Amino acid sequence: MTDTVKFVLDESRMPRHWYNINADLPVPLAPVLHPGTHQPISADDLLPLFPGAVIEQEMSTERDIEIPGPVRDVYRQWRPSPLYRARRLEQALGTPARLYYKYEGVSPTGSHKPNTAVAQAFYNREAGIKHITTETGAGQWGSSLALAGALFGIEVVVYMVKVSFQQKPYRRAFMESFGAECIASPSDTTAAGRAVLAATPDSTGSLGIAISEAVEMAAQREDTHYALGSVLNHVLLHQTVIGIEAREQMAMAEDEPDLVIGCTGGGSNFAGIVFPFLGDQLRGGKRMEFIAVEPAACPTLTKGRFAYDYGDTAHLTPLTKMHTLGSGFVPPGFHAGGLRYHGMAPQISHLADLGLIQPRAYEQLECFAAGLQFARAEGIIPAPEANHAVKATIDEAMRCKESGQSKAILFNLCGHGNFDMQAYTDYLGGKLKDHEYAESEVAIALAGLPSITR
Amino acid sequence: MTDTVKFVLDESRMPRHWYNINADLPVPLAPVLHPGTHQPISADDLLPLFPGAVIEQEMSTERDIEIPGPVRDVYRQWRPSPLYRARRLEQALGTPARLYYKYEGVSPTGSHKPNTAVAQAFYNREAGIKHITTETGAGQWGSSLALAGALFGIEVVVYMVKVSFQQKPYRRAFMESFGAECIASPSDTTAAGRAVLAATPDSTGSLGIAISEAVEMAAQREDTHYALGSVLNHVLLHQTVIGIEAREQMAMAEDEPDLVIGCTGGGSNFAGIVFPFLGDQLRGGKRMEFIAVEPAACPTLTKGRFAYDYGDTAHLTPLTKMHTLGSGFVPPGFHAGGLRYHGMAPQISHLADLGLIQPRAYEQLECFAAGLQFARAEGIIPAPEANHAVKATIDEAMRCKESGQSKAILFNLCGHGNFDMQAYTDYLGGKLKDHEYAESEVAIALAGLPSITR
Repeated sequence: MTDTVKFVLDESRMPRHWYNINADLPVPLAPVLHPGTHQPISADDLLPLFPGAVIEQEMSTERDIEIPGPVRDVYRQWRPSPLYRARRLEQALGTPARLYYKYEGVSPTGSHKPNTAVAQAFYNREAGIKHITTETGAGQWGSSLALAGALFGIEVVVYMVKVSFQQKPYRRAFMESFGAECIASPSDTTAAGRAVLAATPDSTGSLGIAISEAVEMAAQREDTHYALGSVLNHVLLHQTVIGIEAREQMAMAEDEPDLVIGCTGGGSNFAGIVFPFLGDQLRGGKRMEFIAVEPAACPTLTKGRFAYDYGDTAHLTPLTKMHTLGSGFVPPGFHAGGLRYHGMAPQISHLADLGLIQPRAYEQLECFAAGLQFARAEGIIPAPEANHAVKATIDEAMRCKESGQSKAILFNLCGHGNFDMQAYTDYLGGKLKDHEYAESEVAIALAGLPSITR
Repeated sequence: MTDTVKFVLDESRMPRHWYNINADLPVPLAPVLHPGTHQPISADDLLPLFPGAVIEQEMSTERDIEIPGPVRDVYRQWRPSPLYRARRLEQALGTPARLYYKYEGVSPTGSHKPNTAVAQAFYNREAGIKHITTETGAGQWGSSLALAGALFGIEVVVYMVKVSFQQKPYRRAFMESFGAECIASPSDTTAAGRAVLAATPDSTGSLGIAISEAVEMAAQREDTHYALGSVLNHVLLHQTVIGIEAREQMAMAEDEPDLVIGCTGGGSNFAGIVFPFLGDQLRGGKRMEFIAVEPAACPTLTKGRFAYDYGDTAHLTPLTKMHTLGSGFVPPGFHAGGLRYHGMAPQISHLADLGLIQPRAYEQLECFAAGLQFARAEGIIPAPEANHAVKATIDEAMRCKESGQSKAILFNLCGHGNFDMQAYTDYLGGKLKDHEYAESEVAIALAGLPSITR
């Protein structure tokens, strides 16, 4: 058996700044538009929802943004996270490729999400905020914000899509263990929720409805803000701590990636590992390939349109230019719940449009097979989302085997699968199937896009 | 908010030896007896079940036993594990005590169990063994052996108590994800299982039956051995890597514990953190207090008898002198499944009998309350077993607050609660209750002890 090869950064070398890719974009992002006026939005428009410091980050083009001391203090509980060379997987595949993975499953909630949850809770506490509302589907984001709220003394209210609330009682218990309130959405606590219940008393909810409820609650109350777990610039910014660490750890390994791989739902874990390397390239550094892996049943980057769209189904959020399947599109119920979003982060969409990152889509079953192959070699069962990155990595490693090339491939193992054993139970029991891409439903959803040409 | 204070040992300082407390016992352990003859057992008697290297460790009085290179290579995936100062919990309690915890939840299966699973799988592979059988109740041990088997190319067969097999499909999926075979016990794969099924077709199984099935299967086949996850000397030995690391980390903190706390089921995680410190004391080092915390509904150390008893209900195992509630006693179904064992490790029983460690028992509900208090301060939800150690730590910290003493208290956070959210769901939903200690059932079980006076 081959050695474990682990690269651990000393705590003293944990990043002091996040990296803002807006500073290095060859073409700036399209502006965010107000949902009512379709004119570029101002910082003031966002103040009812977010603290000033977060809005500033959302709009900033400053390259290095300081990580506040109290955020670093919490990060230090699990950061710097380890980076491994997957020597046992290399051996199992018989590939000449050098495979590396950054492991974010060491956080208390088992994924990368606390990197931004902790930062957002800190800025809100600094702004005197007592309550934060949010939505959650699979529950990974809600759990992370619940944790961050407990640490910063902020009450967290999570609107959880009703069907998940019923099917995932453990995720609810996890959030409640940290003192968060978890409400099945649609609920009678908001006008948006009551309207849905009046029309459809047995509604099982959707992420779109849950966002509407969380936003409504936050907008109405003085001491209450809203938080989002992906998509927005500031969220992706907070995740860059992953790639900044990985860059140092690759240097410890005396290696440099030729290829960096991450899965993409809203885009935050992909951005986290890729942006620091891509930024180096944009400033004249080594050229690398960057592969964004998405589910074939929700192929935002590979089949979506790059256009202005809303972030929610109820059209309460600002309009952003992004790859979208249409905000009316409801992705099928595959198990990588964190990748079931109709849109994609504007920054990632923009980079894909510029040809700086390569999107790729995989089916569910081949991703689970890859995940189990990884688990049996490396000892960690990945989250279903992360299996997409594993699959692309194995494919690239096998391509190296065919060509005899020895590429260095780095991927983000953004979370473990401890809370996803139902998915593995179904897979192992032969009960999972691939979901066809709902081409006609997407066509209908895309026909409903607002007509904005900028 | 107070800083995270984490002590990380450099990989180069990961222990090279396990510590064998048999070398320093003031009075030697009572001999292990053959179940048939009641005479001291020989190494040869154990050869059908365990590899020679493991039997040697079981009987050794050598103080430092080298950890083989390939075992250290796997350990390095998550070891050295972190030791934290619980500053946020101290602050929440307002205690002058200095609270530290060693965190074993960073292993791939989320507990300390892989420390011995990896070692046992290695020694079996060296002995040319192709299959290992074992039993599991809650599933933590079975998961860890499944992981170790995957890494060393050994096929693992886990007899899982039928009621757990049905109630904990996720644990089964976890084991199967690593390629292990999981069989509901009683099963028709063994004579022992068939006998039970013939007499009680709807038997929900017990740990005792599962042990009989695993032992029978191992004894019958040339290339098959059996493995146990706690109780035996070699298992406790492998866990001492925890305490050896903790001792170095306490030195990094420029502190030394006055009090070391662990929960006790079979005894392995308690031994892991305590024995290295206790060994120092036995050789003339600093006097410390050692608290073994057990569930009040299965109070082996606090109410059991120190006598010869069998390890299983079917009386196939050797007889060891230990604190026992009687091998016929079936503990009630409280949620700390890892602490539901009628006996206690002979080494720990012996040390308790010598007055070198202090046992203490707590009820289930007060342990869950302590666990949630810990989670909200420190960000980690403990396993229900570990909550017993948390409860004792908080009690001792509050005692310090009353007395104004500033003791250094170290406890073993032996696992996280990610796979125990049903227990938290029940607790948060007000559905858990304390279990009365079944005094009369224990009296009946104790009456059935074999009459051996040594």
